Amino acid sequence: MAGNTFGEWFRVATYGESHGAAVGCVVDGCPARVPLAVEDVQAQLDRRRPGQSRLSTPRDEADRAVILSGVEGGVTLGTPIAISVANRNARSGDYELLKAVPRPGHADWTWQVKHGVRAVAGGGRASARETIGRVAAGAVAEAVLKARCPGARIVAWVEQAGTVRMERTDGADWTRTDVDASPARCPDLATAARMAEAINAARREGDSLGGIVACRCSGFPAGLGEPVFGKLTATLAAGMMSIPAARGFEIGEGFSAAAMRGSEHNDSFAPAPGGGVRPATNRAGGVLGGITTGEPIVFRVAFKPVPSIARVQRTAGFGGEPVELSVPGRHDPCVLPRAVPVVEAMAALALADALLAQAARGEP
Amino acid sequence: MAGNTFGEWFRVATYGESHGAAVGCVVDGCPARVPLAVEDVQAQLDRRRPGQSRLSTPRDEADRAVILSGVEGGVTLGTPIAISVANRNARSGDYELLKAVPRPGHADWTWQVKHGVRAVAGGGRASARETIGRVAAGAVAEAVLKARCPGARIVAWVEQAGTVRMERTDGADWTRTDVDASPARCPDLATAARMAEAINAARREGDSLGGIVACRCSGFPAGLGEPVFGKLTATLAAGMMSIPAARGFEIGEGFSAAAMRGSEHNDSFAPAPGGGVRPATNRAGGVLGGITTGEPIVFRVAFKPVPSIARVQRTAGFGGEPVELSVPGRHDPCVLPRAVPVVEAMAALALADALLAQAARGEP
Amino acid sequence: MAGNTFGEWFRVATYGESHGAAVGCVVDGCPARVPLAVEDVQAQLDRRRPGQSRLSTPRDEADRAVILSGVEGGVTLGTPIAISVANRNARSGDYELLKAVPRPGHADWTWQVKHGVRAVAGGGRASARETIGRVAAGAVAEAVLKARCPGARIVAWVEQAGTVRMERTDGADWTRTDVDASPARCPDLATAARMAEAINAARREGDSLGGIVACRCSGFPAGLGEPVFGKLTATLAAGMMSIPAARGFEIGEGFSAAAMRGSEHNDSFAPAPGGGVRPATNRAGGVLGGITTGEPIVFRVAFKPVPSIARVQRTAGFGGEPVELSVPGRHDPCVLPRAVPVVEAMAALALADALLAQAARGEP
Amino acid sequence: MAGNTFGEWFRVATYGESHGAAVGCVVDGCPARVPLAVEDVQAQLDRRRPGQSRLSTPRDEADRAVILSGVEGGVTLGTPIAISVANRNARSGDYELLKAVPRPGHADWTWQVKHGVRAVAGGGRASARETIGRVAAGAVAEAVLKARCPGARIVAWVEQAGTVRMERTDGADWTRTDVDASPARCPDLATAARMAEAINAARREGDSLGGIVACRCSGFPAGLGEPVFGKLTATLAAGMMSIPAARGFEIGEGFSAAAMRGSEHNDSFAPAPGGGVRPATNRAGGVLGGITTGEPIVFRVAFKPVPSIARVQRTAGFGGEPVELSVPGRHDPCVLPRAVPVVEAMAALALADALLAQAARGEP
Repeated sequence: MAGNTFGEWFRVATYGESHGAAVGCVVDGCPARVPLAVEDVQAQLDRRRPGQSRLSTPRDEADRAVILSGVEGGVTLGTPIAISVANRNARSGDYELLKAVPRPGHADWTWQVKHGVRAVAGGGRASARETIGRVAAGAVAEAVLKARCPGARIVAWVEQAGTVRMERTDGADWTRTDVDASPARCPDLATAARMAEAINAARREGDSLGGIVACRCSGFPAGLGEPVFGKLTATLAAGMMSIPAARGFEIGEGFSAAAMRGSEHNDSFAPAPGGGVRPATNRAGGVLGGITTGEPIVFRVAFKPVPSIARVQRTAGFGGEPVELSVPGRHDPCVLPRAVPVVEAMAALALADALLAQAARGEP
Repeated sequence: MAGNTFGEWFRVATYGESHGAAVGCVVDGCPARVPLAVEDVQAQLDRRRPGQSRLSTPRDEADRAVILSGVEGGVTLGTPIAISVANRNARSGDYELLKAVPRPGHADWTWQVKHGVRAVAGGGRASARETIGRVAAGAVAEAVLKARCPGARIVAWVEQAGTVRMERTDGADWTRTDVDASPARCPDLATAARMAEAINAARREGDSLGGIVACRCSGFPAGLGEPVFGKLTATLAAGMMSIPAARGFEIGEGFSAAAMRGSEHNDSFAPAPGGGVRPATNRAGGVLGGITTGEPIVFRVAFKPVPSIARVQRTAGFGGEPVELSVPGRHDPCVLPRAVPVVEAMAALALADALLAQAARGEP
Repeated sequence: MAGNTFGEWFRVATYGESHGAAVGCVVDGCPARVPLAVEDVQAQLDRRRPGQSRLSTPRDEADRAVILSGVEGGVTLGTPIAISVANRNARSGDYELLKAVPRPGHADWTWQVKHGVRAVAGGGRASARETIGRVAAGAVAEAVLKARCPGARIVAWVEQAGTVRMERTDGADWTRTDVDASPARCPDLATAARMAEAINAARREGDSLGGIVACRCSGFPAGLGEPVFGKLTATLAAGMMSIPAARGFEIGEGFSAAAMRGSEHNDSFAPAPGGGVRPATNRAGGVLGGITTGEPIVFRVAFKPVPSIARVQRTAGFGGEPVELSVPGRHDPCVLPRAVPVVEAMAALALADALLAQAARGEP
Repeated sequence: MAGNTFGEWFRVATYGESHGAAVGCVVDGCPARVPLAVEDVQAQLDRRRPGQSRLSTPRDEADRAVILSGVEGGVTLGTPIAISVANRNARSGDYELLKAVPRPGHADWTWQVKHGVRAVAGGGRASARETIGRVAAGAVAEAVLKARCPGARIVAWVEQAGTVRMERTDGADWTRTDVDASPARCPDLATAARMAEAINAARREGDSLGGIVACRCSGFPAGLGEPVFGKLTATLAAGMMSIPAARGFEIGEGFSAAAMRGSEHNDSFAPAPGGGVRPATNRAGGVLGGITTGEPIVFRVAFKPVPSIARVQRTAGFGGEPVELSVPGRHDPCVLPRAVPVVEAMAALALADALLAQAARGEP
């Protein structure tokens, strides 16, 4: 959680400006002898990359991952895994205007204030390209999770885009194929179609939409999460709220739980198939006291609308001078479909870290 | 964020079971020569302690803080500050039944699964008493913030209890005195009265309520927060979601931002009094790209209803045997009023850590 | 390694000034269900406490440990273990003079420069009492090591006091009883007697001696240590060099290896009893490439002579004024015998951390 | 200190196997607006690279650094600085034999035991090439130190190679030019010539030499170092002992201090030019109580002889079978001259971390 490093045991450091030479990550703490191929990484990068459909930015980047270290003969070596993705399709000219004018709602201004300098082109590190390092590292984390928890599955989807939302269905066991069946990445295809319309309408109007991504992690054992500050709710929240444009996080019933009574919200216990008990319902979203229950972990992340819009905004330049700004460049009207693999990556990173922490102590 | 340690530079480790000898904390990384008195710590502990009003548990604990180290002559020494609070009014007999039956919605069961052992009495570390260490450490953090940012103010309040909620008023500059004017800790006194009624009704019915705490941190400079994983949104979220019963976190417009358009949500810039610019509005809740804007930081935390209720629940014992459980012991029907200083403490800890991180690099 | 926190996974934070209310530690990350009694902690504290023999300071402290949390029913709970020791026999009046005059060779001056303030009495945290927290935490670490590696043994002894030194015998499997057979804690009793004479002579002359503590950790599996920066050589060195007065660390042949040839220093491999190989000799001191070989880990720590001496020193006060200083107070003429359990504690902490790191990844 | 990550504030993660695609590092926590050019990095890499003289391995690698991120317009951005160096001149065929036979004195065997797998070619990460990431990161750290402490200078040199050693002269203010005046990197040119002879003799005999590198860091302010576990002595020791082949570390009088009396070893204080005091002598090697005194920091690192020797060794293969091994490949007969920039790099990293830690708290 320090700066550009996430995780205590399964740690990733990411790097890279949008228009610099490369973006990528170094994963430290990955167990040895975990099967890993560059294709595992590329598959999630492909779901994240721009230019996949008309719903996203026309900036077209192949975003080819190269594994520089830590993998040999198809397995991890227990050494750091460095993954790099070159930046190719940068059009820095688009950013000339932005040297003098901070985009409203964007981090141009806070980065400048924080460091007294910033990489103007492409937003530097305050760009969606920063998430490439996360997605690459998340793919490594997923490989670990699959090796340790056969049956583990992490699937995110777009539940809401602007004001269009699908019904909440925490129990539905969607696959990534289901999610990818529509460009909006909403597994409810009727809703997906309406989302696509809304996104296209926003684009035509030079505007943008926010939305909500839901995520379900199933097949994980009970007992993961490190109370009190390393509760899984805390590390998941940190991971999700660190994603660009994230504005809210909730687990299980989330904000709705605030209006419920204990007698409504509590999940009673029932006999478990192999002996002992398990929760009979899952209002907790798979986490009690920050520790997994073995039920699916279900959470949601709210994203604000993309701040870079073509529509004219009355704002001020760095010096305070009034400006009418129409943000140039190629921007997503709605980042939600591309945020899906990023949410999955951060979930995988938080879970891999929790898995190692629990194994470290050799507990049940 | 590792286990019982929060913060990277201004670090706190907390300890203590509910019915053990003591609860407390060790703060490491606190600057020297910061004025600090035990009264500063006690003041917030008094707002957290049980038995303050009829709205909370009748367990009556004085919760006297003792500073064991790190402070001499009224100032910090730059060495670790250990603060301890003895546990006195424990009634472990109340917990005999709970050896065999995990409380629905409570962490009894997940702790047992995680560690293969647990402190049954008082819920061990999965008890609200765990938050004493947070509040004590938070008071130290606040002393640092006040010394470094004169005018800094962190105030939380109960915005919703059960289904009773006050109007959202992010701009109102409540003081802690305003908040403490009602036992419900809702500064809108008419709403506070309705909250008290609702809480008492829940108690009479052997049930419990959840709710929402809002928090506003003003007087902080722009530039705090460490992208990308140490964004202030991420560390605040981690801190808040680590509080017992927390189920959701949002900043600024939060989940509402999902349904907004960029043109609605963006905060335009306007000339700042001393030159340069500042955001003209504050939909961002004081944080852009994970970095503070200098505007008030406004966020909300959703809490689930207290799981320990007297009302009979049909559940199962650890062995799977059916049980009709009426949870014994002295429990809050609604934890929200007492959660207020805990939310403030976690905010102070996250901000102190961010302040030190920014100072470390000697940046503007 | 950050400030007052040691270890990444088995973490300890220590606290306490010499003449403050208490000194102690919080251990975070300790596995659950490890047998632990307060007597385990007290036994090592008793070996560290002043007043054990005429060779040490006459300050007589019982140094009773109290376990405040994390242990119930004789086993650890997986929660933080807080251990506190009250300071009782403080004679702060001895330190009045030292407000104005920094002791040569002591950290009085650097602490004052660093923090702009210091706890004058007893040297504050730059006192040997600081090591109580280490010894208490080390006893917890040892309990973990014994539970995980039956047969593990960590034994340190005084190899050199002033110019009196015993023969190097890395192979000898001393017990703590052997070591404690003489007040000098040198298992070669003839040398121990000469050490005692030398220490007493130094005391009579108002002077002090340095020395070397050797340590041997046997019964640990091969594979511990986290290359490249977390090599066991690195974490052991950090632990040892953090002990007050430590000035050098070496492992295996150490500085002597500098003058050897590869053909002399290399340990060839030989068939191991259960199949595979093991090193036939142990010039490496049990660590190759930062990873344990399964052979005894043998290292040495050099300590400078205690700086607080009665003999008159010509020095200067904080303001630069010339002073003839005879340090008042009760000081050890030679800290080596009491450093033995401190070295063992730091070894245990480094090894417990390495053990958890290796287990975390579920490697062989 | 965790795995492949060094530093708490100024953090570096290194990666890369000897015969993999690349080696390198990511530096996180570097202040913004520090002047940095790739030439600064290359200069130290050039001093580390093989093939510089007849004293080192004939493997000839240009080792060109590429800065992938974090630097723009000649200054750092405050974002992670990723530096990569491609591996080019790998001759993996040399390592075929070593699949079955662990080299005596080398980490082949312990890595295999630790992870159950290893990169055989080139020794994988247990290769001197691993130090490229350190040297690159160290150059970034030096840029920070120079920006913050004008006049700061870190210079290491070879004090001993095999049994040839120069006189200890802690006070001599060598420059890197002085050190580089001989291939042995010993600034005493007469001794340097004898070292070269000894190294060449060892090579002809298929053997190798160890030695000692001394290092002097001058121009740093008093007050750096974070007691108690983050003492500068501890972090320097950890950094140095993590370098391949390091076997011992000492500061100031080091192991010699063990035989001294307090009255001999103590550095008295004397009036300082600008008021106050400073130590009149520097037996402490610039660090008292783990905190810098402002005097030159002087320490030494002992290295064992290179284990990979052509001379025949009787040893055993992984299965226990007897083998007469003459290690193939291109190995340094004495690693000391190339270790000089590595020692400087680790010193710079430890000091940069200490500098940020002190600045974080805004102390004097």
